[in-house]
Amino acid sequence: MKIVIAPDSFKESLPSDQVARAIQSGFQSIFPKAEYHLLPIADGGEGTVQAFVSAHGGKVESISVTGPLGLPVDAKIAFSNDGETAFIEMAEACGLHLVPLDHRNPLNTTSFGVGELMLHAVNQGASELIIGVGGSSTNDGGVGMAAALGFEFFDVERKAVKGAGKDLFNIASMSDSSRDRRLDLVNITVAADVENPLTGNNGATYIYGPQKGLPEDMLDEMDKAMCRFYQMAGNYLGMDVSCLPGSGAGGGIGAGLVLFTGAKLKKGIELMLEHLKVKEICKDADIVIVGEGKMDRQTIFGKAPSGVAKCAPPKAKVIAICGSVGEGSEVLYDHGFDAIFPTIPAILPIENILGGAFKNIESTSRNVAALLR
Amino acid sequence: MKIVIAPDSFKESLPSDQVARAIQSGFQSIFPKAEYHLLPIADGGEGTVQAFVSAHGGKVESISVTGPLGLPVDAKIAFSNDGETAFIEMAEACGLHLVPLDHRNPLNTTSFGVGELMLHAVNQGASELIIGVGGSSTNDGGVGMAAALGFEFFDVERKAVKGAGKDLFNIASMSDSSRDRRLDLVNITVAADVENPLTGNNGATYIYGPQKGLPEDMLDEMDKAMCRFYQMAGNYLGMDVSCLPGSGAGGGIGAGLVLFTGAKLKKGIELMLEHLKVKEICKDADIVIVGEGKMDRQTIFGKAPSGVAKCAPPKAKVIAICGSVGEGSEVLYDHGFDAIFPTIPAILPIENILGGAFKNIESTSRNVAALLR
Repeated sequence: MKIVIAPDSFKESLPSDQVARAIQSGFQSIFPKAEYHLLPIADGGEGTVQAFVSAHGGKVESISVTGPLGLPVDAKIAFSNDGETAFIEMAEACGLHLVPLDHRNPLNTTSFGVGELMLHAVNQGASELIIGVGGSSTNDGGVGMAAALGFEFFDVERKAVKGAGKDLFNIASMSDSSRDRRLDLVNITVAADVENPLTGNNGATYIYGPQKGLPEDMLDEMDKAMCRFYQMAGNYLGMDVSCLPGSGAGGGIGAGLVLFTGAKLKKGIELMLEHLKVKEICKDADIVIVGEGKMDRQTIFGKAPSGVAKCAPPKAKVIAICGSVGEGSEVLYDHGFDAIFPTIPAILPIENILGGAFKNIESTSRNVAALLR
Repeated sequence: MKIVIAPDSFKESLPSDQVARAIQSGFQSIFPKAEYHLLPIADGGEGTVQAFVSAHGGKVESISVTGPLGLPVDAKIAFSNDGETAFIEMAEACGLHLVPLDHRNPLNTTSFGVGELMLHAVNQGASELIIGVGGSSTNDGGVGMAAALGFEFFDVERKAVKGAGKDLFNIASMSDSSRDRRLDLVNITVAADVENPLTGNNGATYIYGPQKGLPEDMLDEMDKAMCRFYQMAGNYLGMDVSCLPGSGAGGGIGAGLVLFTGAKLKKGIELMLEHLKVKEICKDADIVIVGEGKMDRQTIFGKAPSGVAKCAPPKAKVIAICGSVGEGSEVLYDHGFDAIFPTIPAILPIENILGGAFKNIESTSRNVAALLR
């Protein structure tokens, strides 16, 4: 019997590789001799670097880069075993979790550290970068990242501007003459966790600005500044990227990576499924187990478990193990899921439930396996 | 496919007949053509009358009887379709839930109403009584019940005594000359939910007195009074019942029913399994589903789900659906349970979880069934 275990992380409680191990442990107590394939998944957000490393092997480093507010932070970066591919997670350099609650405001945050991580990768000899852009604290359109790569931005008085969100209001011109040209030889792929365009009512500023701390009364002005900046930069570099799906990911760094580095935008989950060869591995699976912290009617819209479920062959049972089940989860039964099991054992304090995640996932998996015996 | 559904109630949220219906509904969405047998279970406590009626059919009446504190209460009593058997639940007449928190004290409560329910059954022509004795507020040794049946009790001055817990201190003699002799022709069975003897360190007073509101400093005196009363009454009627397992059930009414009415004491769950013919019905079952509000390592000690699990044939899958799973529940895997599933969908306010029980049980059952497809 072949069992593929491909869960996303349980946010706030367990990373995806540990979720996968907990599921395997539960199943092994019933099926000790089955053939297990552990494929922890991430969709471009939190856990992406770890998921790629779990899948490919490789090594993780931690380096000091410029944090979202300009102070140094330690950020992880991973390399494939052959050193060719680097895996970068934007949130490591400028994630929202790095900004104290009362300082959250994307006018003041910068993606500069992402550029530094990219340069580090190039310095180490990587020829391919995969950059997950979920969970950022920024809405700088990637101008900070571009500045780190040597692009120069100027205000109307031709004074250099560094690159936080509020600088987009003042940038009047730019130059690429000092840019790090080694980037031209590197393949860069963005794993976008959302499909929003750069600007407009459905763009980065309007949709994600508020949750990053952008004051409501700044939305219109910020969106217009982003638009003007990309008209100027697009004219300068000869490309219009503002309408690409995913260009609004990571506070507009999606657009920035395409325009300034020639990156390709991909849906994070698709990139992950492709890299992990999930479809190929699932081809002859008997059981495919997916999982996520919370599953509900939103799960069918491009979330990891749905992506994996689509890779499962019709004869395989597709079972979801999750932290909690929300309203409308029944719709999943019509989208390739055979059954969905939450893992909360009892009415307990939230700390106990989050802290007991490994044990609860293991126990639920054991019970699920017992029914399949 | 034959599916037997035999859950206990989920205390504080759903009676056992509704638990059974929720499980059936979930299974039917996957197995619409299976043969279903619904056997809601109770172990002598809360829900026993309802469980017998659900199993046998029959009618439920409500009559006014003397409540635990002497004021009238409405109590349910059920009769089999042929009118031969009456089902009585002690808690209906003198349950702990009928006494306000700040009035709970078994010195002041009486089981008189239980005797009235028994007389009503006899008046209606019943020749068999089954009496569930869980959940009582009393520790009167059944003297109240006996008084209702016409037994007379006197203090040292030969003054008549009625029969609450504290009267046991004063009773010096008794008479059965006015007892209702129709009871001699009636078969009475006590469904005891505990196996404690009447007196001593493991008896009714010491073990259950405190949770019924008996002050700790009265335990010794009360236990001795119970002992003296039963020596006197046992001498008078020529029987010693104080050491029978279950004689301490219902604040000692177990002993009282044996001594004053010739009742037989049975474990509630065994009586229920026998009456419901659970073993016979399970004989050729493919799936047996049990359930209870909470399951943990205590479940193997005579609780309803364990009783049912023992009735299942080896080839049947035995699955528990429960409100919550507690510490040590793994031990159940070695006692006939294939798998155990809690039904809490998410971290929610307790009202929502208790109030959503039907839906949550239904949903869990649907998912369990999908794995068995």
